[in-house]
Amino acid sequence: MSTESPAVQDFYPDDFSHCAGCGRLNTHGRQFKTRRDGDETVTRFTPAVHDTAVPGFVYGGLIAALVDCHAMATASAAALQAAGKEIGEVPSPRFVTASLKVDYLKPTPVGVELEARGKVRERSERKTMVEVTVFAGGVVTARGEVIAVPMPSAMVKH
Amino acid sequence: MSTESPAVQDFYPDDFSHCAGCGRLNTHGRQFKTRRDGDETVTRFTPAVHDTAVPGFVYGGLIAALVDCHAMATASAAALQAAGKEIGEVPSPRFVTASLKVDYLKPTPVGVELEARGKVRERSERKTMVEVTVFAGGVVTARGEVIAVPMPSAMVKH
Repeated sequence: MSTESPAVQDFYPDDFSHCAGCGRLNTHGRQFKTRRDGDETVTRFTPAVHDTAVPGFVYGGLIAALVDCHAMATASAAALQAAGKEIGEVPSPRFVTASLKVDYLKPTPVGVELEARGKVRERSERKTMVEVTVFAGGVVTARGEVIAVPMPSAMVKH
Repeated sequence: MSTESPAVQDFYPDDFSHCAGCGRLNTHGRQFKTRRDGDETVTRFTPAVHDTAVPGFVYGGLIAALVDCHAMATASAAALQAAGKEIGEVPSPRFVTASLKVDYLKPTPVGVELEARGKVRERSERKTMVEVTVFAGGVVTARGEVIAVPMPSAMVKH
């Protein structure tokens, strides 16, 4: 029996669902979906054939994007949890990236599903620090550390 | 009179020109082009309408990709220079990303050209540290620090 939750991104408000990484309304996007899985979060994604850096290996920019969106959704899930809400019960709060660090530990092969797993390391009202591990076919190939902040009101279109 | 060089990426060997960010042979890619401009390097790119994070602002994953490819090309240009070669005189050596850090200083608006400018901070045979500043319409919106390493032989397909 799966313990995974609905996807955080499916409950971002429509106005904030156009992200090229994870927006459900961005038809040119990758539509990453992040679910809670126990005390972690998980996003699974299989890169396309053209998502390469050099032939046979996944483009680092895609991995950075996966880490980025996964971390924002993890921060959102943590904010929901802190408010005593389940994913899907209310709109998912939208976070933006203050800083993103990715260590590429080994080349990431194409042709296998990637799994990004996230954990919140620190959380306050102002910022959430998320650690992300990227697995390719069960092997850790990259690690990320991301600082998420609640979306500033200056980014809301009036 | 422009002092800008030919693009580093136009001289990556064909086998290593499929990068989703900057490969000239990846028709699904962004085809970033990095040129030397005095003692800096520059990549200019205007994001598409769908390259958004939230409406009106550029997706952080695209900025990370721009910083990433720009830094690899900057490391390549520095290696050429260390060998006493001009860009285009010999194939550009291919670097891969060991680590990527991007600080998002303020939201990056869509609808203006982005300019990534790079400088090599440290360089050895083993690694090159590149600092990248991203401008949107002349305003600094992100800063990156990237460690590039020569492409390991394990990534060369035989």
